[in-house]
Amino acid sequence: MSSSINIPDTGAKRIVIVGAGFAGLTLARKLQNKGYQIVLIDKNNFHQFQPLLYQVAMAGLEPSSIAFPLRKAFQKCRDVFIRVTTVEEIDVQKNEITTRLGTLCYDYLVLAIGVTTNFFGNENFASKALSMKSIEEALYLRNLILNDYEKAVTTTDYDDRQSLVDIVIVGGGPTGVEVAGALVEMKNFILPKDFHELDTNEIDIHLIQSGETLLKGMSEEAGKNAEIFLRKMGVKVTLNTRVEDFDGEYVYLKGGEKIQTNKVIWAAGITGNKVKGLPEDVVVRGNRIRTDKINRVIGTENVFAIGDIAIVDDEPAYEYGHPQVAQVAIQQGKLLSKNLPAIINNKPTKDFVYNDKGSMATIGRNKAVVDLPRFKFKGFFAWIVWLVVHLFSIIGVKNKIFVFINWVWGYFSYDQSLRLIIKPAKRLKHREDDAV
Amino acid sequence: MSSSINIPDTGAKRIVIVGAGFAGLTLARKLQNKGYQIVLIDKNNFHQFQPLLYQVAMAGLEPSSIAFPLRKAFQKCRDVFIRVTTVEEIDVQKNEITTRLGTLCYDYLVLAIGVTTNFFGNENFASKALSMKSIEEALYLRNLILNDYEKAVTTTDYDDRQSLVDIVIVGGGPTGVEVAGALVEMKNFILPKDFHELDTNEIDIHLIQSGETLLKGMSEEAGKNAEIFLRKMGVKVTLNTRVEDFDGEYVYLKGGEKIQTNKVIWAAGITGNKVKGLPEDVVVRGNRIRTDKINRVIGTENVFAIGDIAIVDDEPAYEYGHPQVAQVAIQQGKLLSKNLPAIINNKPTKDFVYNDKGSMATIGRNKAVVDLPRFKFKGFFAWIVWLVVHLFSIIGVKNKIFVFINWVWGYFSYDQSLRLIIKPAKRLKHREDDAV
Repeated sequence: MSSSINIPDTGAKRIVIVGAGFAGLTLARKLQNKGYQIVLIDKNNFHQFQPLLYQVAMAGLEPSSIAFPLRKAFQKCRDVFIRVTTVEEIDVQKNEITTRLGTLCYDYLVLAIGVTTNFFGNENFASKALSMKSIEEALYLRNLILNDYEKAVTTTDYDDRQSLVDIVIVGGGPTGVEVAGALVEMKNFILPKDFHELDTNEIDIHLIQSGETLLKGMSEEAGKNAEIFLRKMGVKVTLNTRVEDFDGEYVYLKGGEKIQTNKVIWAAGITGNKVKGLPEDVVVRGNRIRTDKINRVIGTENVFAIGDIAIVDDEPAYEYGHPQVAQVAIQQGKLLSKNLPAIINNKPTKDFVYNDKGSMATIGRNKAVVDLPRFKFKGFFAWIVWLVVHLFSIIGVKNKIFVFINWVWGYFSYDQSLRLIIKPAKRLKHREDDAV
Repeated sequence: MSSSINIPDTGAKRIVIVGAGFAGLTLARKLQNKGYQIVLIDKNNFHQFQPLLYQVAMAGLEPSSIAFPLRKAFQKCRDVFIRVTTVEEIDVQKNEITTRLGTLCYDYLVLAIGVTTNFFGNENFASKALSMKSIEEALYLRNLILNDYEKAVTTTDYDDRQSLVDIVIVGGGPTGVEVAGALVEMKNFILPKDFHELDTNEIDIHLIQSGETLLKGMSEEAGKNAEIFLRKMGVKVTLNTRVEDFDGEYVYLKGGEKIQTNKVIWAAGITGNKVKGLPEDVVVRGNRIRTDKINRVIGTENVFAIGDIAIVDDEPAYEYGHPQVAQVAIQQGKLLSKNLPAIINNKPTKDFVYNDKGSMATIGRNKAVVDLPRFKFKGFFAWIVWLVVHLFSIIGVKNKIFVFINWVWGYFSYDQSLRLIIKPAKRLKHREDDAV
């Protein structure tokens, strides 16, 4: 079948943006209808609201509530060209990018390619643990968890049942904490109602953290408070302990202890997505791409990197790079949407300065921790702040409404009704090349 | 791993219900908390609202809006045991049913196993056409349609593009009519906004019906009106024509014509799901199971069949069996919930008499046809009736709310925001036996 990337040459400056996460999407929206030709490339046809992905995995929200179709986001823009594909290589000399759909030249290239799960080279975790960086992975995790509770009902051997019902979460950052909280709430409030045949006391939710406190990157109090919340709810929190291996049956901890489970949720690290063709010395620790203060990739003229993938040089305040969070990505996207036109028009550019508005994590109903630049708080009020901030950040009015109803419903009923195990359909033989 | 079906013997009469569609679910709900032990077996952990499945395939509704988890439906009943498994064989002599989880004996067995797609023996359609009898299939269809429009954007050859954008629907019953209407509305209202690069005039939606009119089973006017509606909206309706073959590239019609497309949606027939172990002469035309007037399987004492799978003997008014629709299934489920206790307590039973409340089909916005026993109507008012009836039939208050919001939103915006292509995640190696 004849296919090509098929972008018309309109004479306008072509800005190719790779990645429609917070950084790429913000940039594309700000640059639309400004006389440039924007090519937005993503492997998905939608933007996903990463911070709530864990609620999809925990059967609390539907995928469509936290995803927004890219074509819908740009319905009114005839200068935005969306291509659902993956990038194979870039050539910074020729100003060309090669995708699975073909090669495209650019005037300006913006890499907003984000990060993926880092298993730190452990093959067993990479192949047997569950990660949660995409809607696909979140749905698969949801299916596995629910399926295993079903299996537990018909499993008469205690040890076999332990393997099905216990879950180990590796990594005590926001994702690990939020997943642990959601799983233990499912254990406490939902499973006793759903599975009257199951002894929910048999279920253990383990959270393993290598460092001294949870929520590294937030304040010490926040980490401590999250730990107290989680322990009260019944999560078995283990600090200062690394996991060594996982064979599909047992997780082995450094020190000799082992935990029986078939499900390990990996929330222990991220690493930048790789792209071929960049000068080697610009890709540094954690696969991040070194940029100058206007997010231009070091050693290039017209290639930029923004969001989680970027690390800004000469930033004494952020020795290890800015935190890899939505706020940084959005702010870099916004700034670049002003700097790019400035560069094109030979006007002065503005350096990136991160405006840290604070950080927060939720642990469960009425339980969250919030660090603002000036003060810190926790509990019910923090939880409300978390809800409001996330609700307003979701793209799409209908998505906001649906998430809101789901949350209110869940709050008052102590329940959700999304616990569906939906298996992938049998594929058609003549369409097997289509990865859908 | 040690697993068994693991149903405790409580001394209560055990009623095993296979299938949680309209018939099985209605029966189980009516029999709960009545002192019997109810075992409800389904291959899914949810009940699905079949009449709106096509809206999931057309990206109009989310799966969770039309599905309801079985365990949630029976949260308060300690006498209902849900098993997510498939039945392999029944033994009416031994009063035993064998599932993938093991063997279980019963006092009463109710087969509410429903129907599946009938390809009438055509291997090519069976392997290459798309059907829509489950949420899995509906999601797969949604993914394929959206993916092909994406591919069409980067396909420069006209014929190749035709194959991607044209869709052929085989079968002019309610499903075929509703799918054709939804697809042509997508073409008319949504695709021009989403795909400014695509010439939507190139898109043809074909509906092929073997008989003389659409909506066989409804009145002639209803069929005629549906045809007029569809043609006005731009569907290419072909009557009196059978499809002969499909090679993945062309659909071949009887008479020599062929239509280029890679997508055939098969809505042309249904056939009963098979179950091993029934006397051969009770399984008749369309794989339906012959029952007496209280839905007891002919030749058995304590085995019943209800819903689409059942065909009631000696029904002169319904020579070819009752229509295989939700109303019959629900009414048979309700009646059996009274007859079973009557049988157990040696009380007189009541014969099944179908109370036909009418039938309806929707074609598009403001367009539906309704046949009531006393009068027929069409258009906006019919469409409102269709909406209200379906809305009230969906299980779960939250599901009702979400479907309602989706419909209202879609009505006023001429749009939805569910056009997500969600690919199945890579499976874990050590969990490959789990079909999730």
